[in-house]
Amino acid sequence: MSDDIRGTSRIPLVLDLDTGIDDALALAYALGSPEVELVGVVSSYGNVTMETAARNTCALLELLGRPDIPVYLGLDRPTASAGPFSPPPGVVRIHGENGLGGAVLPCGCRTTRQNGVDFIANAGVMRHRELCYVPTGPLTNLAAALRRSPGLASRLPRVTFMGGALTVPGNVTPCAEANVRNDPEAADAVLRSGLRTCMVGLDVTHQAILTREETAAWRELGAAGRLFAQMADYYIGIYEKNNPCLGGCALHDPLAVAAAIDPTLVRCLPANLCVDLAGPTRGRTVCDPARLRDAEKCCDVALGVDVPRFLGEFRTRVRRALGGR
Amino acid sequence: MSDDIRGTSRIPLVLDLDTGIDDALALAYALGSPEVELVGVVSSYGNVTMETAARNTCALLELLGRPDIPVYLGLDRPTASAGPFSPPPGVVRIHGENGLGGAVLPCGCRTTRQNGVDFIANAGVMRHRELCYVPTGPLTNLAAALRRSPGLASRLPRVTFMGGALTVPGNVTPCAEANVRNDPEAADAVLRSGLRTCMVGLDVTHQAILTREETAAWRELGAAGRLFAQMADYYIGIYEKNNPCLGGCALHDPLAVAAAIDPTLVRCLPANLCVDLAGPTRGRTVCDPARLRDAEKCCDVALGVDVPRFLGEFRTRVRRALGGR
Repeated sequence: MSDDIRGTSRIPLVLDLDTGIDDALALAYALGSPEVELVGVVSSYGNVTMETAARNTCALLELLGRPDIPVYLGLDRPTASAGPFSPPPGVVRIHGENGLGGAVLPCGCRTTRQNGVDFIANAGVMRHRELCYVPTGPLTNLAAALRRSPGLASRLPRVTFMGGALTVPGNVTPCAEANVRNDPEAADAVLRSGLRTCMVGLDVTHQAILTREETAAWRELGAAGRLFAQMADYYIGIYEKNNPCLGGCALHDPLAVAAAIDPTLVRCLPANLCVDLAGPTRGRTVCDPARLRDAEKCCDVALGVDVPRFLGEFRTRVRRALGGR
Repeated sequence: MSDDIRGTSRIPLVLDLDTGIDDALALAYALGSPEVELVGVVSSYGNVTMETAARNTCALLELLGRPDIPVYLGLDRPTASAGPFSPPPGVVRIHGENGLGGAVLPCGCRTTRQNGVDFIANAGVMRHRELCYVPTGPLTNLAAALRRSPGLASRLPRVTFMGGALTVPGNVTPCAEANVRNDPEAADAVLRSGLRTCMVGLDVTHQAILTREETAAWRELGAAGRLFAQMADYYIGIYEKNNPCLGGCALHDPLAVAAAIDPTLVRCLPANLCVDLAGPTRGRTVCDPARLRDAEKCCDVALGVDVPRFLGEFRTRVRRALGGR
C-alpha cells in the first residue's frame, strides 16, 4: 500500500483495534462506508491479546473481501507494564475465548510483522488533512507514537477514540472504562499532549443498542452475515445477563467510527481532560482542574448521540459490508 | 410574613443556607437583586452547625438592613446520622471558627424557632409558579420536606442547588463535592424524586473567581462593606494556600443564586442524576445508568458559565447590597 491516497477522493481511515466483537462490527461499519477508504488497521490488546487481535483483524478483512488492507502490529502491553497483556477471565467471557464469540472464521494464512507504532508516527497518510484515525482499544500505540515523534500532536488531525466515561459510571470500576483502565498512563499522555481528540465513551455508547432483531436479518446475507450474527448474538447474550435493562448490546466501537466519519452524530462538550493514575479512581477520565479555565479545549467529549440516525447508518453500512445492498 | 407575595411583581426567592462565607456572599447577591424578593432563609449545617448558620444568617440580614426577613431552623444532621453535625477541622479552617472568617458582626438578639422543613413542605410561597428556591448546603431539608409531603416533587417549581461535581474532581474526596458528601442519601432522594432541578456544582463554580481587587473596593462602602471584605479576604487567603492556581476564591453559592435568577448565565446538560451511596465514591453525583436513555431529564447540570457576565452581575449586585449604588 502507498502511504498516500492520491487518486481517490475518499477520506482515509485508520483503525486501531483490539479486535473483539464490537471491533469487528466497527470494521464492518468502516468497510460499508462509501465516504472513507480504510487504509490500514493497527492491532492492540484489551478484548484479546495484541496477537489475537491482529489474527482476528486479518480473518475479518478476508471474510469481508478486503484481504488487501494492511494490518500492523501494535504494542502488546500497557505503557507501565513489564509483561504482555492477557485479557482477564471477565473479558474472555464477554468476547469469547477467540475474541469473536466462538465464531470460526475461514482463516487465510496471511501474517503481518509491520510495526504499527512506526506507521502511526511516520506514515504520510497519518498527516492527511482529513484523516480519520480511530483507536477503539487502549491508547498505548498512539501514546508511543507521540513519544517517538515529537511534534506529532500538532501534525495529526483530530483523533476520535472509543474510551472513557465522563458523566456515567465506568464498566470496570465505578470510575473507570475498560480501554482507559487498561492503560491510564497512555490515555493521560494523549489527553495532555495538546492533540485534538474526540472522546466517544460510555456517556454515549450505552445509549446506542443493537438488538437481535437486526442480527436476525444478517443471517439472510450469506456466510459473512451468518458469522457476524453469531458473534453479535453471543455478545448480546452477555449483555442480557450483565445489563438486562439495555435490551441488547452497546455499540461502543462502531459509534466511534461513525462519529469520526460524521461528527454531527454526537453532541460534544469541549473540555481539557486528564486521567486519574492512582488510588481507587485509577483510570477515571475527568476534567483537569488546572486547565478548567483555559479558553482552548483539546477534547470534544461526546455526551449526546442522535440514536435513531446512528442506528439507521449502522444498519445500512454493516449490511452493505456483509454483502447486502 | 405572609406566605403569599401578592402585591409585588418581584419573584419570590427562598434560600437554604449553611451560612459560611460564600453563603454570606450569596445572601448579599440575593438582597442586591431587584428582580427577586427574599421571602425567607432556611438554615442548614455544613460549613458550620445548623444553629450557627441560623445565627449568622440573622446577623447578616441585620447588617444588610433586612432584619424583617424570616429565618427558619432546618435539620441539624444528615438523613442517615444519629447525631447533630459539627464541621470537621478542615472546614472550620476554610470558613473560620464562627463561619464568617472571624468577622464580628453587630449581632441583634433575634432568635427564631420556626420550622424550616414545615415551611418548605407547606408554605404557599413554595408553590409560586416562578419561585426560586436555592439550597447552597446539603439537601437534607428539601429531602425531608419531600418525605413529609407526598406530591411536593410535582408541586415545587425548579430547584437550583449548589452542589455536586459531574465532570470535575470533588473537593472532599476525588469524587465527592462537600454539600452532596455531607448527606448523600438526601441528594440521591432529591435527584430521584422527579423534581426538576438545576445543579450548580464544581463544574462551573471553580470557573467563577473572586479576587482581592474586588474586595478592596468593598472597603469603601461603609461598615457592611468592610465586614464583607474581611470575610472574603479570609476565604481568599485559604484558597491561596489550597488552590493557588485559581488566583482567588470560588463563588460557589453566589453562582447558584445568580443562575436561579437568570438561568441564561449557565449552559446545561439535561441529565438524570443519582448519587453513589457506598464505597470510595460515596457522595459522587453521576448519571443514573438506569435512566440514561429516558427521554425525560429531571436535572439541568450546569457545565458552562458566562464568567464575565456573572462577575459583572456579582459586582453590581453585591455592591448594591453593601450600600453602594
